[in-house]
Amino acid sequence: MAELCVRSVLVTGANRGLGLGFVQHFLRMSKPPQWIFAGCRDPKGQRAQELQNLASKHPNIIIVPLEVANPASIKATAAKVGEHLGGSGLNLLINNAGMAKPKSLDNETLETMTQVYTTNTVGPLLMGQAFLPLLKKAAQGSPGSGLSCSKAAIVNMSSYAGSIQDMYVWDYGQVVSYRCSKAALNMLSKCQSLTYKEHGILCVALHPGWVQTEMGAAGSLKPPLTVDESVQGMLKVLSSISEKETGTFLDWEGKVIPW
Amino acid sequence: MAELCVRSVLVTGANRGLGLGFVQHFLRMSKPPQWIFAGCRDPKGQRAQELQNLASKHPNIIIVPLEVANPASIKATAAKVGEHLGGSGLNLLINNAGMAKPKSLDNETLETMTQVYTTNTVGPLLMGQAFLPLLKKAAQGSPGSGLSCSKAAIVNMSSYAGSIQDMYVWDYGQVVSYRCSKAALNMLSKCQSLTYKEHGILCVALHPGWVQTEMGAAGSLKPPLTVDESVQGMLKVLSSISEKETGTFLDWEGKVIPW
Repeated sequence: MAELCVRSVLVTGANRGLGLGFVQHFLRMSKPPQWIFAGCRDPKGQRAQELQNLASKHPNIIIVPLEVANPASIKATAAKVGEHLGGSGLNLLINNAGMAKPKSLDNETLETMTQVYTTNTVGPLLMGQAFLPLLKKAAQGSPGSGLSCSKAAIVNMSSYAGSIQDMYVWDYGQVVSYRCSKAALNMLSKCQSLTYKEHGILCVALHPGWVQTEMGAAGSLKPPLTVDESVQGMLKVLSSISEKETGTFLDWEGKVIPW
Repeated sequence: MAELCVRSVLVTGANRGLGLGFVQHFLRMSKPPQWIFAGCRDPKGQRAQELQNLASKHPNIIIVPLEVANPASIKATAAKVGEHLGGSGLNLLINNAGMAKPKSLDNETLETMTQVYTTNTVGPLLMGQAFLPLLKKAAQGSPGSGLSCSKAAIVNMSSYAGSIQDMYVWDYGQVVSYRCSKAALNMLSKCQSLTYKEHGILCVALHPGWVQTEMGAAGSLKPPLTVDESVQGMLKVLSSISEKETGTFLDWEGKVIPW
């Protein structure tokens, strides 16, 4: 199986957890991307220190301030990324930024529901809209007629917790606002796949596994997967998928998850 | 099959379309409910005229002002309904109020996404929370151990458009904000079913069919179903379901719809 080979990629929420893991794995590729756009809310903040250190050693990392819950921030970032790319397009958009609020059904509020939905669902929608011209350009500039993540793709970081069918690890947390936002994100991914197919853009929803990130380890149990294992698995999946998988919901090992 | 037999029911968005249809069908039952709470945003407005006329002839209709996107309005309505019911509970909550904004993926906005989600998804969540004490009371006060809509139930009016698997009539309208809100509502229904089962409350998501309502007829094609046919079908479904169907997604004929 060929390694994923992209000239440019944008990862949201890139300062920690899976986002930072993606950036690190892209750097380690035999043919690393020419541009790794690392979106994070507060590039100057304490929580972006590790990403800043990495960027100081790797000039192909371009840190871009990005708040996915803010349409103006998204537009500004798209303009900035476009400038960096000059005439070329963006191959891969990884909508990784996300949030969870540990509440039960009884104490969910309008505020929590809205906040989580805005970041986890509306953010990826607006990101797709804003970067569509650059993704189209990448698709047009790539050889071959099929869809692939090396050509042009939107990858939405979903979660098994968004599976209405399976209700994954229900006993460990109801997190209704999170589950609803991820079910809606899965629907968005399907909509994007149907709409953007004609532009040569693959769209997929991924479940990273239960990972040792800040979010994954919020409960009392230790998650089984390291960030490295999860990201390595997901990149392998991304390198192998094509038309057949656009609009699907896959886990970090490539297994289909029921909606 | 026994007719649905409830002592009290609350229907949201009861001034027109399917909501008004439910109220009319409850009135026509051989044993009509003692209390039909008809929630609507503006009971004094022009658009509530038909409901007002009906209520003037049927003292068991109690019109309650209710804006499901407003937590304070929901709480006030729950208090008012509780007063009317005296010591008894509410058997059936029909979360019917909903909205759609006809936009394509390209022109969805943060505002539309949030507005539609608030009404279609967060509203039913908050309604479930606010009416939980009354629904519990109804469950406790009913004979028998199983779940049923005659005992205590939350019915969420979903839509086939919320099926991620089937992407119902995609070609006729993308309505991404609506689809995402209904996929999320389906997730909410599943969450409610798992949480409220121990309280003796059945929860189900229903697709009313493609109905000749203001919303259904917004496109250029005439929907095949009348409000009467849809409501009659749904009431038949509600009269027949039990534990086995809690947490499922059914259409107006009782067929299971894939998530």
